[in-house]
Amino acid sequence: MHVNAYAAPEAGAPLALTTIDRRAVGEHDVLIAIEYAGICHSDIHTVNGDWGPQPFPVVPGHEIVGTVAEIGSGVTHHQVGDRVGVGCMVNACRECVNCLQGDEQYCTNGMVGTYAMTDRDGTTTQGGYSTHVVVDANFVLSIPEGLDPAAAAPLLCAGITTYTPLKHWNAGPGTKVAVVGLGGLGHMAVKIAHALGADVTVLSQSLKKQEDGLRLGADHYYATSDPDTFAVLANQFDLIVNTVSASIDVNAYLGLLAVDGTLVNVGAPPTPFQVDAMSLIGARRSFAGSMIGGIAATQEMLKFCAEHGIASEIEVIAAEQINEAYERVLASDVRYRFVIDASTLN
Amino acid sequence: MHVNAYAAPEAGAPLALTTIDRRAVGEHDVLIAIEYAGICHSDIHTVNGDWGPQPFPVVPGHEIVGTVAEIGSGVTHHQVGDRVGVGCMVNACRECVNCLQGDEQYCTNGMVGTYAMTDRDGTTTQGGYSTHVVVDANFVLSIPEGLDPAAAAPLLCAGITTYTPLKHWNAGPGTKVAVVGLGGLGHMAVKIAHALGADVTVLSQSLKKQEDGLRLGADHYYATSDPDTFAVLANQFDLIVNTVSASIDVNAYLGLLAVDGTLVNVGAPPTPFQVDAMSLIGARRSFAGSMIGGIAATQEMLKFCAEHGIASEIEVIAAEQINEAYERVLASDVRYRFVIDASTLN
Repeated sequence: MHVNAYAAPEAGAPLALTTIDRRAVGEHDVLIAIEYAGICHSDIHTVNGDWGPQPFPVVPGHEIVGTVAEIGSGVTHHQVGDRVGVGCMVNACRECVNCLQGDEQYCTNGMVGTYAMTDRDGTTTQGGYSTHVVVDANFVLSIPEGLDPAAAAPLLCAGITTYTPLKHWNAGPGTKVAVVGLGGLGHMAVKIAHALGADVTVLSQSLKKQEDGLRLGADHYYATSDPDTFAVLANQFDLIVNTVSASIDVNAYLGLLAVDGTLVNVGAPPTPFQVDAMSLIGARRSFAGSMIGGIAATQEMLKFCAEHGIASEIEVIAAEQINEAYERVLASDVRYRFVIDASTLN
Repeated sequence: MHVNAYAAPEAGAPLALTTIDRRAVGEHDVLIAIEYAGICHSDIHTVNGDWGPQPFPVVPGHEIVGTVAEIGSGVTHHQVGDRVGVGCMVNACRECVNCLQGDEQYCTNGMVGTYAMTDRDGTTTQGGYSTHVVVDANFVLSIPEGLDPAAAAPLLCAGITTYTPLKHWNAGPGTKVAVVGLGGLGHMAVKIAHALGADVTVLSQSLKKQEDGLRLGADHYYATSDPDTFAVLANQFDLIVNTVSASIDVNAYLGLLAVDGTLVNVGAPPTPFQVDAMSLIGARRSFAGSMIGGIAATQEMLKFCAEHGIASEIEVIAAEQINEAYERVLASDVRYRFVIDASTLN
């Protein structure tokens, strides 16, 4: 099956319209007619070659929402016409200890990313900037009724990336949560932490987005460019979710944690963090990391978001605006996620 | 009250016999006739000036066991003749959020260390290398029947330092725990983790102490000087307790943790750890720190050790051997803790 897609032909080159092949629908596969695909910062890193050589041409996109167009004979829990989603993974071994406990993202045999990865059949995966995609049914999520399909797309990456640490480290009533950075990930973290019942503080470089932050559910908003912030908020938080991919002064942020507090990084800056032992030992603090979430957790997150009326703040664009959108993402000029209308690919 | 003590007269100078003043027994105080005092590596750091200027002369010692010689009129839970202990703290504010939840070691107004610290009455604390000490009754522990008093002394620091992270991060049946370093702290971690029911692995520089480690309760023993160790044990452990105060390749050790595993540091090397984000994010791992434990937790630990017949492996020395013992600690030539017989100070 030949389908339209927007692909990067080589590292750093602008994306352009092309056609790619999608495999025939196998016994356990679902063919999805894509409606929307979010643009994640990691799409840009990948096609720019920031993360090493890639199997170009690369079709990015791992925040996919669409409808089921066809199912394989062995597929039982998705029906033609259902609204579904695909996130950052399209396969995993399903046999290792991590897969068996629902953490397919940590598959010890290697989970298969939605694009630019080698699938278990040897083919190269291609992502959601396209009209259609064929995905194993076990990696296809159901989009609950009531979620706007365009605004739901970013939940598949930005949503689960922030939902997992908030749930894992028990954000909820009576807990104080800080979110570092108010971008694509950060704004989801604020919404979800607020819906979980936590007292939410945004720690942003400036107060530029303060009004937005409070509207999205934050209770407090501080500028990290103001050194007073780190004195005023010392020893306050049970959980800090750092959504900033650039290097940070990790000890300064650890100092904001109460006894037994945890700072969780969901981004991966290229240089190591310099962690002073006393930043941890001085209050039994933890510095942790978290990467997306398993399939069952992602489905749970979608249900949670539908129940709480949560989705991403988005700007819907046509496919021909992708390169311009990339420039604007790099300039932090998006509130808060670009979503491609896949009908513009036809 | 003038009492005999061994003190460091200045930074780096040998300790020598001297006399010091102990305060009169106040309403809430306990006068303890010291029987034994353990030698902790941090005693050596302190008197050598490694941790900054000190209020010399300094009498070290925060692993103290003795009997109650006198009590103040307000003291109800200790009686003359009781066997008691004092650990790393002799005071705290008792009002802050951390004190109120039993974490006096993290007192936000500053806990008062057993020696070389300014007590809340303005006096300088002096430690356990002495015949007597006066301590607020709330910071005096009861030594349960059945614990050998000399071997119990190191429990007050080495014991609680390792018990706290093992308990806090749920070491127990079905969990795999690694202990890095088999010294004063490490050998207690092995004994306690084993008694908690965990599967225990020692990660030591060489296999020199392997026989000891297995005798103390370890199920497995690996040399970290063998690079194969890090491949063979990858993704295995739920908890690693790092008792080594020198710098380590923290990413190599984080790689030994399973999903959701935690590496806890109980020492404080002077240079920062270089932590790669992917070491954490790749398996939702945590890098944490822990410092001793609160008074209630220390009492709980002593009860646990008595019930399980656990105490430190010790070499009892006379006071005049203290300087020689310091040399041997620095040369790692002790299995596993020196304990001073305070009767030799008379």
